[in-house]
Amino acid sequence: MKTSNEARSEEVDAVLDDFFSLAKRRANAVSQRYGDLWEVLERNSVGGKRFRPRLVIAAYEALGGEDREACARVGAAFELLHTALIVHDDVIDRDFSRRGIPNVSGSYRDEATTAGISTPQAEHRGMSAAVIAGDLALSGASRLLLGLTCDEVCKSRLLDILDEAIFASAGGELLDVELSLAPEVPTVAEVLDMERAKTAVYSFEAPLMAGAVLAGADAAVVDSLEEFGREVGIAYQIVDDLLGVFGDEEATGKTTLGDLREGKRTVLVAYAAATDDWFAIRPFIGKSDLTVAEAEHVRARLVSCGARDLAERLIDEHASRGLAVLGRPEIPDDLRQVLTPIVETVLARVR
Amino acid sequence: MKTSNEARSEEVDAVLDDFFSLAKRRANAVSQRYGDLWEVLERNSVGGKRFRPRLVIAAYEALGGEDREACARVGAAFELLHTALIVHDDVIDRDFSRRGIPNVSGSYRDEATTAGISTPQAEHRGMSAAVIAGDLALSGASRLLLGLTCDEVCKSRLLDILDEAIFASAGGELLDVELSLAPEVPTVAEVLDMERAKTAVYSFEAPLMAGAVLAGADAAVVDSLEEFGREVGIAYQIVDDLLGVFGDEEATGKTTLGDLREGKRTVLVAYAAATDDWFAIRPFIGKSDLTVAEAEHVRARLVSCGARDLAERLIDEHASRGLAVLGRPEIPDDLRQVLTPIVETVLARVR
Repeated sequence: MKTSNEARSEEVDAVLDDFFSLAKRRANAVSQRYGDLWEVLERNSVGGKRFRPRLVIAAYEALGGEDREACARVGAAFELLHTALIVHDDVIDRDFSRRGIPNVSGSYRDEATTAGISTPQAEHRGMSAAVIAGDLALSGASRLLLGLTCDEVCKSRLLDILDEAIFASAGGELLDVELSLAPEVPTVAEVLDMERAKTAVYSFEAPLMAGAVLAGADAAVVDSLEEFGREVGIAYQIVDDLLGVFGDEEATGKTTLGDLREGKRTVLVAYAAATDDWFAIRPFIGKSDLTVAEAEHVRARLVSCGARDLAERLIDEHASRGLAVLGRPEIPDDLRQVLTPIVETVLARVR
Repeated sequence: MKTSNEARSEEVDAVLDDFFSLAKRRANAVSQRYGDLWEVLERNSVGGKRFRPRLVIAAYEALGGEDREACARVGAAFELLHTALIVHDDVIDRDFSRRGIPNVSGSYRDEATTAGISTPQAEHRGMSAAVIAGDLALSGASRLLLGLTCDEVCKSRLLDILDEAIFASAGGELLDVELSLAPEVPTVAEVLDMERAKTAVYSFEAPLMAGAVLAGADAAVVDSLEEFGREVGIAYQIVDDLLGVFGDEEATGKTTLGDLREGKRTVLVAYAAATDDWFAIRPFIGKSDLTVAEAEHVRARLVSCGARDLAERLIDEHASRGLAVLGRPEIPDDLRQVLTPIVETVLARVR
């Protein structure tokens, strides 16, 4: 028997399946090459953990929502938004793969290389296709919400939430670009603001709020979910920063050299930069050929200067604030019960 | 005294002004750097000829529409869509200026270069900012339509027209990328299909249809405007191809070497490639250091092989078909009177 979670996730997949089938049909009528782009975009959108749709569903059902089709559609919209943002983020980061698999740019680049096109031209083809594909996913996200049959006030609030998520993510992405280029290392507060805007808003706050709005929840509940989402979302990002340097590569599937080699502006680096240990750490941040031994040295310094402690303390702090929000009287028991494990899952990643 | 056209154009500007003021306020609350991005995006969106809004207004008013505020808002949405598409088109073409003025990428690149950042990093910063800015303009276009106070059926049809325009432009942009990379030169029909999808739909068909829908016009009128827009839009693109090689540089403000040097797949090149003259033309198509004398040689061959004649004939053909649509009984006199000069303006560019 399927768990309720699996069944809901399949409903989201079914919405996306319909969305892509229709788009591919329309695109193939223009040109088979255009149909291919949709095919590649679809491949880049399936297979994820459907994390954002799960948050929409969790909030919606715990608040008594019963229109599963509408809920799946809102979940699918946030999944498409996620696709749009990572496709364009990969263009900005000049990444040609994600989780070891070619992304949109990578698929288009590889196909061109195989056809004998030079690497710079092939990479440019990949980037171009990804700019276009991201635009399509972005406009697809609002299309899915527009297709809702709920009342117009509700629909318009959902579209506002989506808009706010796009607005925040774009700002966060820009800050990420700017912070990484600035000669001085940003402060911990600047890194947290950037991470919140870039990821926490669209990954946590917006899906939870959307689920609540669709369920017809009171403003107090929606506001509390926004706050909860913010705290947990920030905690999640700091966990990510921590795992990027101190993680178990087998468990995370991510190298612990990557963040250091690309000189990523993390909470760890931002904190360390304001300590005396910075002089011993700085030469290795952004060193593209950083060795395993050098990384070990950096890790030891990040521990001794207190950066690791600070990150762990911040994670606990934000997680506790998130849990405190769940303790408020306006949060129904069902909702508390479904959201508490999310905080625990986030914390479990670093424990 | 202001002409009615100028007054309407100012109403569109006022909508965009409000839109950008609000966005800048919201962005500055996140970070001044984010406010700056909106400032640059706004600069890239003002100063155009407001061509698409003018089409919206022409159709709307000739069909008896009287809600000038709503009409200005729809016009502004198409202007923002235009901004989004050219900002991303410039990313794809790796252009850092438009009409001699730095575009979004160019502004961000130049600022970084001035601050002492290396050219590749500065260019990458420019491209990144432009990917983000284009996303914001794209989602802004639907926001403007969502803010309409017209009835929901009308709003939803307008959003469908916008979606169709985004869908077609993305397909056209992809085909443009693909045709320019393919070893074989495309056929005239392939070039026309690409140009129609990339530009004619969002620049001609969609604005005219949107004006008519907002005015509450019959389906027959809306369909005829789509057809009219397609014919005139295609004619316009062929005129562009022709001017790009045979134009008067002073009148167009565009070099007549550019298209040849970048090896652009135009109607001229597509036609020539199927003639015996191609062997004499081919070496110069895409020759990045093409001289004035070589360009003269290519022009003479494009004339002798019949490519120029073909282009002129196609322009006349599509323009005539457009005018024939205007002669249909469902097109009111007022609409015919306001649209006929548009066809004449398109033709006048090559006469």
